[in-house]
This record gives sequence, structure tokens and C-alpha cells, in this order.
Amino acid sequence: MFEILTRCPETRARTGIINTAHGKIQTPIFMPVGTLASVKSVSVEELKNCGAQIILGNTYHLYLRPGCDVIDHMKGLHHFMNWDSPILTDSGGFQFFSLAKLAKFSDEGVDFQSHIDGSRHIFTPEKAVEIQSLLGSDIMMSLDWCIGHPADKGATMEALKKTTMWAERGLEFWRDNGKPNALFGIVQGGMYKELRSLSAKQLEDLDFPGYAIGGLSVGEPTEMMYEMADHTAPLLPYEKPKYVMGVGTPENLVELVGMGVDMFDCVMPSRNARNGQLFTSGGTLNISNAAFKMDEAPVDESCNCYTCRNYSRAYLRHLYKSRELLAYRLNTIHNLHYYLTLMANIRQAVAQGSFNLFKKSFYSRLECGLK
Amino acid sequence: MFEILTRCPETRARTGIINTAHGKIQTPIFMPVGTLASVKSVSVEELKNCGAQIILGNTYHLYLRPGCDVIDHMKGLHHFMNWDSPILTDSGGFQFFSLAKLAKFSDEGVDFQSHIDGSRHIFTPEKAVEIQSLLGSDIMMSLDWCIGHPADKGATMEALKKTTMWAERGLEFWRDNGKPNALFGIVQGGMYKELRSLSAKQLEDLDFPGYAIGGLSVGEPTEMMYEMADHTAPLLPYEKPKYVMGVGTPENLVELVGMGVDMFDCVMPSRNARNGQLFTSGGTLNISNAAFKMDEAPVDESCNCYTCRNYSRAYLRHLYKSRELLAYRLNTIHNLHYYLTLMANIRQAVAQGSFNLFKKSFYSRLECGLK
Repeated sequence: MFEILTRCPETRARTGIINTAHGKIQTPIFMPVGTLASVKSVSVEELKNCGAQIILGNTYHLYLRPGCDVIDHMKGLHHFMNWDSPILTDSGGFQFFSLAKLAKFSDEGVDFQSHIDGSRHIFTPEKAVEIQSLLGSDIMMSLDWCIGHPADKGATMEALKKTTMWAERGLEFWRDNGKPNALFGIVQGGMYKELRSLSAKQLEDLDFPGYAIGGLSVGEPTEMMYEMADHTAPLLPYEKPKYVMGVGTPENLVELVGMGVDMFDCVMPSRNARNGQLFTSGGTLNISNAAFKMDEAPVDESCNCYTCRNYSRAYLRHLYKSRELLAYRLNTIHNLHYYLTLMANIRQAVAQGSFNLFKKSFYSRLECGLK
Repeated sequence: MFEILTRCPETRARTGIINTAHGKIQTPIFMPVGTLASVKSVSVEELKNCGAQIILGNTYHLYLRPGCDVIDHMKGLHHFMNWDSPILTDSGGFQFFSLAKLAKFSDEGVDFQSHIDGSRHIFTPEKAVEIQSLLGSDIMMSLDWCIGHPADKGATMEALKKTTMWAERGLEFWRDNGKPNALFGIVQGGMYKELRSLSAKQLEDLDFPGYAIGGLSVGEPTEMMYEMADHTAPLLPYEKPKYVMGVGTPENLVELVGMGVDMFDCVMPSRNARNGQLFTSGGTLNISNAAFKMDEAPVDESCNCYTCRNYSRAYLRHLYKSRELLAYRLNTIHNLHYYLTLMANIRQAVAQGSFNLFKKSFYSRLECGLK
């Protein structure tokens, strides 16, 4: 399903194509997060115009609302939300760590309470695959046990063992119920390099179509996240797509691409947009700042997004301060466009063999600051 | 500025064209309400696609947020919010009645406290025109004293007298500071026909470019609202546009057009959309209803709006129940499209001399109910 097109001669960065039943994805790629069958505040046409090739849906959330029965009846997530390009769904593992109440992990799976109404549910590795098959996602993720930071080595080892066991069971279930989609394994191992190595080795042996590095961005310092990703990425099969889950800032994406990572997702561009933080080539700005009260300039002069082509900082500030619904949309369009354009520029630089030059220019613009 | 094109042979309904510096408006017309320089949740492109020809801005709200200094600096409301078609602004009169704190009315004008921060402000009839000129609206409204229901005759007469006095002063100020926009007078007089007659006569003598019937939809029964509008509309100069402010339901619009009304505005389609109530040719539905959980049909099979062309009731219900921001947008697009299409159908029927037939068909579809 994955084809590598070009390699950076100086780093581990590469460009490639992931083939899915809903079309091709050019990598490295950022996936906007559409938790509840909607990337918050934006339409599917706006996503496409921002350059989105694939979006992420959250299995845990969709399982609870609207429920798999509804999405199955509505002929899958693509049809339900009117998105005809690829969708990746996670397995719920991160939400059991971050959101669900009283999650209990056993060999069998995860027993948890809904964060909405406290109702009890069980996810097994087989069920995680089954639900994602009902959703109809193009890339499914294996059920994993995501552990926070800090965590002692014993607990981290325990989570890793379950993750591998579940990976094997999920994979078997997926192979037996063959659908035209892919299942990725998720490397765990916390902040212990030897455990990351062990997890990567165990998953490699299972021969997944692709691999994720999970359990990052869980409270650890950035340097530690880089260290783990840099250690783990080259341990995974070179010819398979590599996905770092839940990361991160624009700088994080640039660095991780250099470590050989192909796929990313993060709520940062959309969530921060709803909090008034906008990304630009010169760094971030908070649109509620009084300095923008009469500012006729767009958010970023060099940006070609719908928001920057049509609206001033003064208007965006007014909408945001007035809590107008349009504020969240215009801000989200800008931030997603920024992230997706960054990835397109990265792809171009890698393809042209000038990724390191791109990195220098990216950081030097950031240092110049906001205009 | 107003040209009458066709007249209904059986009712007072007519079609016409209002000419403004930002283009022509076909009447009878409904104006979506863009209180704070945004029709809540929708873009200007979506407004155009719904058939909006003119929108309404609220002077009271825009004066407080972002403030006239900002909009003036940003070259007026059209440029600020990226809307290049006509804009009508009200005078603040309705907000002094409905929203501002401790509004005190005197010959001079209205002394009020902001509903946001309690700060004190004064609106005079001249200032109301001045502010609306800064906003750059195509049709401005004269400062009026809107009185609620019930109100005794003495108080209603007092409000009427001030309204006429202010109308005269505002008109003089507008004529002395001639801008390429229009100023409409507002008839008051509460629920007293003789006071409505008096107000209409006094304003007619002032020779405004257009006239509104204000002080309706302030708590009175629908039949009383119809009685007042039916009494007042024919008292106003036939050749001038007639505007009933703040009304109303689809049925209200159909009835009032038959009384000779040309223009309407109301928050109903947009506000009700945000509360999950959707308008259809068979009546309203509440999208949160459990009956729609697995409903693959669009809101209205006969509707051609973006929402109905692309989304099911099941998806809209899910978004609404999950409080997804996209819900408010998709619902608002549908309701505005419904209102604006209704007006387009009314115009066509009047133009073809079949308005009464249209009315029969409109009510018979409503009686058939939702499919």
C-alpha cells in the first residue's frame, strides 16, 4: 500500500504515496482530526480547499456518539459525513488513557466508563477492529495501551506486553475478516529506549501494513519525545509508513519528518484556532490581542487561505471577542491551511533534495517573528 | 430608489426593485440578520448561495462592538465583513426596548447603559444617522421609540410623539449630510389604530424614501399584529417601500406580503436553526428528535440547499446532539434558504398574478405536514 518516491540524502526524510480504497495520500502528511464525524467548525469542502488528503476519526468518540449502529446504517463514516477521501481511525487507546473513566486493562481488553454518561463498555482488540470496519475507515489502528509520563518501567512493560498481545489478536481478526483497508500496529514502551526497541521488534515480526509510534505527547518534555521518536523510527521496517500519533507543533512536524516519520495527526491547529491562537510563518499570534483592533492586514501576508484572502485581523479579532461562530471557522481554516501547506512544502523540499535548506529557512522565518 | 414592477390583482401584494449603491434588491424580500457584522455561523458566500440580496446589521450592537471607530477605520461595514451587496441598519430603537439597561427617553434622545459592561451612552436622532453613515449602510433607519405590549394609550402617544420629533431631526441631519444611502421613517403607535394613523400621517408629511412599521412582534397576539399591519400599510405612500420590522414566521411573511409589505427581517430562521428547529414546506421539525436517529433523508426532500443536497437528518441530528459547530451552520443554511426561497416563490407568484393560488398551495402543503 506504500510506495516511497524520494529520499532526503542528508536525513531520514522521504516522500511517498499511500494507496487506499478512497484514493492516494502523499506523504509526509498531516491529518486533521474529525473526532465526532466533523473536523470542528469546517466543512468537507473547506478541508479539501485547505489541502486535506486524509482526516482522522476517533473510534472511542464515534462508538459512543452517534454509535456504530447509526454509522453502519448510514453506510459508513465516509457517507455519513460526506467525506469521500481517506479516513484513518484510531483504536480508542489514547482516549482510555486521557478521557474515559475508570479504565481497567486486562489480557482480554479494556473495561471503561463513558465520559458522557458513565455507562460501562468493553473494548477487545477484535472489537476495536470490528468497530473500525463498521466505520469503514481506510486505515485502522490496533488497540493499544497508552501509558502516561512519568511511568515506571514495570508498568510500562506491562502496557507494552498487552499492546503486543492485542496487536497479534487484532491482526488475526483483521486477516480473517479481510476488508480493503489497512491495520497499523502501535509501538509503545514509554520513555524507555530498550522497551521501545522491544515493542518495535515484536510488532515488526507481526508484519503490519504500517506502524505508529504511540505513547508520545503524553506530558514528556519535547526533547524526550524527539529522543524516543528518533530511536524508534529507524527500528521499524523502512518500506512501511510510519506515523507518530498526536504530535504536534509545526517545529515538531519538521523535526520528525527528518527522523523518517510519514504521518501525523494533532488537534493543535483546530483546537488552538478555537482558542484564538493562529499559526504563521513568523510564529503564533493571539487574535484577541488589542494590537489587532484596527489592523487591516490579514493574519499572514504570505498566506493564501480563504481567511487571509478575505478578512483582516481587525475583523477576526472582533468576531473572536464577540464569540461569533464564524470566528472558529475562519481561524480553523487558517490554521489547517498553515499545517497542510507546511507539509506540502516539506514534501516539495524532500522531493527536490533540499529538506535541510527548507529547515533552515523555516527556522529563520520563525526567528524573524511576526510582521 | 423604488420601482414597482407588478401588482397582485386580488391583494395589495406587489413586486418591485429597490436601487442602492451596492446593487438592486428584488422585493418582497427577507433580510437575514447579521447583528455583529456576521450572520451567525454562515459565510457571505453561503448567504449569497441561499439567495440573500441584502442583510441587516444592528446599529446598537455594532456601536458597542467593535465600535464605530473600528468600522470607520476599516472603510465601513461592507468592507469590514466582506459583504458587497446592500446592507440595512436599524437605529437601535428596538434594542433600547429589548436589551439595553435603564434606557431613559427624552426629547433629546435615548440615554442607556450597555448590556455588555453597563457603560453609559446617549443616542440622539442625529447621532443614529451619523453612526449609520459611518457604518456605510445602504438603508438607514430613523431613531424610534419602540413600546411593548401591552402599553396604555398615553405612554404609546408619548413614544409616538418622540418618534416623529426624532424622525424630523434625523431626516434634516441626513439631508444636510447627504450620503448616497436612504433613510426610512418608522411608524409607531402601539396597538392603537388611531395612533398608527397619526404616526403614518406625520411621517408621510416628512417624505421619507421608505417607511417601516415598527413596534410589532413585541408580545402581542398574531391577529393583533396582522390587524395593525393591515391598517397601517395602506396609509403609507403607495410608491414607497414598506418594511415590517422583526417579523416573523413563514406564515407571517405570506400574510403581510398580501397586505402590501415589501421588506422583512427576523432572527427567527437563524436563531431557531441554532436551537435545532428547521423549516420545511410541511412545517417545522426539531432535528434532535429521536425519530431522526437513523433517518437517511434530507431535512426536506424538495429543498435544494447545500445542507439538504449533502446531509441526512441522521447526520444533522448527531452534530446537533454533539454540539458540533458545524450543526449551527448547516441548520442556518437550510433555514435561510427556506426563507429566501419562500420570498423568491412569492415574488414569482405575484409577478405571474397567482399570489392567492400560491397562498392556497403554501397552506395546503403545511397542512399535509412533514414527510
